[in-house]
Amino acid sequence: MKATILTIGTEILFGSIVNTNSVFLSKELNALGIDVLRHVTVGDNRGRLLKALKQAYEDCDLIITTGGLGPTEDDLTKETIAEYFGAPLEEHPEELDIIRGWFESQGRVMAENNVKQAWFPRGSVILPNPNGTAPGFYYTDGNRHIYVLPGPPRENVPMFRDHVAPRLSAHDDGYLFYKIVRTTGIGESDLETRLMDLIDGQTDPTIATYAKQFECSFRVASKRPTLKGAQDAVEECMVKIRERIGEYIYSEDDKDLLVIVMDKLKANGIKIASAESITGGMFAKMITDVPGASKVFSKGIVTYSNEAKMSELGVKPETLEKYGAISLQTAEEMARGLSRKSGCRICVSVTGNAGPDADEGKPVGQFFVGLMNGDELTVKEFRANRNNRNYIREFACYQMVKMVHNVLRDID
Amino acid sequence: MKATILTIGTEILFGSIVNTNSVFLSKELNALGIDVLRHVTVGDNRGRLLKALKQAYEDCDLIITTGGLGPTEDDLTKETIAEYFGAPLEEHPEELDIIRGWFESQGRVMAENNVKQAWFPRGSVILPNPNGTAPGFYYTDGNRHIYVLPGPPRENVPMFRDHVAPRLSAHDDGYLFYKIVRTTGIGESDLETRLMDLIDGQTDPTIATYAKQFECSFRVASKRPTLKGAQDAVEECMVKIRERIGEYIYSEDDKDLLVIVMDKLKANGIKIASAESITGGMFAKMITDVPGASKVFSKGIVTYSNEAKMSELGVKPETLEKYGAISLQTAEEMARGLSRKSGCRICVSVTGNAGPDADEGKPVGQFFVGLMNGDELTVKEFRANRNNRNYIREFACYQMVKMVHNVLRDID
Repeated sequence: MKATILTIGTEILFGSIVNTNSVFLSKELNALGIDVLRHVTVGDNRGRLLKALKQAYEDCDLIITTGGLGPTEDDLTKETIAEYFGAPLEEHPEELDIIRGWFESQGRVMAENNVKQAWFPRGSVILPNPNGTAPGFYYTDGNRHIYVLPGPPRENVPMFRDHVAPRLSAHDDGYLFYKIVRTTGIGESDLETRLMDLIDGQTDPTIATYAKQFECSFRVASKRPTLKGAQDAVEECMVKIRERIGEYIYSEDDKDLLVIVMDKLKANGIKIASAESITGGMFAKMITDVPGASKVFSKGIVTYSNEAKMSELGVKPETLEKYGAISLQTAEEMARGLSRKSGCRICVSVTGNAGPDADEGKPVGQFFVGLMNGDELTVKEFRANRNNRNYIREFACYQMVKMVHNVLRDID
Repeated sequence: MKATILTIGTEILFGSIVNTNSVFLSKELNALGIDVLRHVTVGDNRGRLLKALKQAYEDCDLIITTGGLGPTEDDLTKETIAEYFGAPLEEHPEELDIIRGWFESQGRVMAENNVKQAWFPRGSVILPNPNGTAPGFYYTDGNRHIYVLPGPPRENVPMFRDHVAPRLSAHDDGYLFYKIVRTTGIGESDLETRLMDLIDGQTDPTIATYAKQFECSFRVASKRPTLKGAQDAVEECMVKIRERIGEYIYSEDDKDLLVIVMDKLKANGIKIASAESITGGMFAKMITDVPGASKVFSKGIVTYSNEAKMSELGVKPETLEKYGAISLQTAEEMARGLSRKSGCRICVSVTGNAGPDADEGKPVGQFFVGLMNGDELTVKEFRANRNNRNYIREFACYQMVKMVHNVLRDID
């Protein structure tokens, strides 16, 4: 099946908001095995919306629209779709009751123009919206399927999941099953080379690699007459993949490395602390992004100055003088100092140069990570190959997470 | 002038990456007074790209494309545009030399297929790309203008700013001048009410408000036959605006509050330190996002546990017991402890509940900020009205920055 995602919203054409609906729907549709041929965004404009519908109708089986279902005169998505398909709008009294009830539940009185939200093209199937006043709808002229959803993500995301996705399989033949596999420590081209014969000439299952920042993922997908058949085909392919690159795989269900690390720390009651220079708190922030972080994360120290490295972590002045703040030795002393001070089993430290210029003669992008696991020390040198402050800092945090993951890997 | 933004990239149709190019270009074009009628994204597909060009040609004076300028067979943006306009591709030897030189500067040898990147439709103006191998180009058939840019933002953003924006004024009549004014402490509807008579029935200058996260900005724009005329008209309008809401304005050139704070700290040689609980390092991370932060930021302490609050900041056990970790009193003691320990003039602390559940009986979203300016203490209570961890943490950081800004406001 082929799809167009059609967004109706002037705010997007102003650049005031990001079109996250298209990102969400693209991911979901691709995961269901549906090809997304095109994204189009237009404002609340009858003529351009008609053109977009016409173009989508020409080469797509499926059109999903978001936005323009509000009660004001600007909102003309429904009117225009009704016009395009020649299906006049009709009032659905039971929907009007629901909308009226929604306002009452909020202690408000429904304005007269909200009546419009209970009008739908003749022959539509209403898609309920428990999160707002605008119901969506599904319409087909027998040749094409169109799903019309409200704009706000907190309304259209649940509507898609509850009422659109389940219907889409029925338009199509067969069941799709897929796995998103995450790896670390192997580049995209190396990965492709090792899986080349599986990728070449593949029909089903298919393997598609895609590079994410700092690492590489791939999707193994199969579409068969039964779900079981698709699952078995994916698993059979996974057996071959694991034989070749199993050591690099850290998740077969698209989980973040950081989430895996945090789960493992929690499950084993292991405490972690951080001492950051170059990343300036970014690592602690990432860790505490994860709900329940307080169970494993007690403290983080951001020692941005030399003085702070000495007073907070006991880094020796001689070390700073002899090797500099950006050095293997300083990273080591930061980790050791943090370990003494915090008593946490895992203590991770980082120091480096995020640019824009060389510092202490150390090139932009160079950084050092220290890690204490109990009384066992590891220190590593890294080099980010871009002169971009944010990139370098994120890359450093990623390496910290990866080193912690390596230590935790052997714990079960 | 009316524009279509045309993105060429399969990754976007997969939902793997967000179409930030369209956001950036929409903002820039709108700021230049150009109406963006449509965003379209297609894959590397000749037929669909031709259709998109045809549709854009029908109602737009200006087409800006991004993506599909790579060296591989997939990349067919240039071929398709050449075909659409009937302008055959021609090799530009001087561009080929530049591309070859780029590879040499990276210590690499140019692959044969990169030659393609030096081919352009006859009559094009080349737009240089110092950040990658794919130059962009400008082409016109006399009726329409098309700018063809590479996909990666770090290549197309500078190309737009340096080579596209300056040309766009020349296609149009008159000069646009605008200011983006930032405010804090006033809501969008209040702002609109106070400026209502200026906004109502406006023709030129125009005032458009837009809510950003946690604050409100507006744009004052004028288009006149001369640049001086536009500047004067904007300034005349600004005089009236300042009279009404001057106290809420913190920037008239679209500068971030954080950047203003950091500039002021640097200019006055004032040191700052942070003690964070709820935000878990996010404040320190934000501060150190700003290049040159090391001049003013020495250390940050992330005290996520009660133990850390006591050992690192000297918060009293009685305080934690009597009032809880999420309290005005704890925020105060955190700020005082940090001040003693760091010796920095400005010491800011934060503690609160980021959810998902009530904690110590404190509701989700409640937080307290403490601030020491020398030996002068301010403590404030806040409440974020959403149960969203990231939102609450960002809101808390914003309030910390705002409190520091308040203190610095009086220093000149």
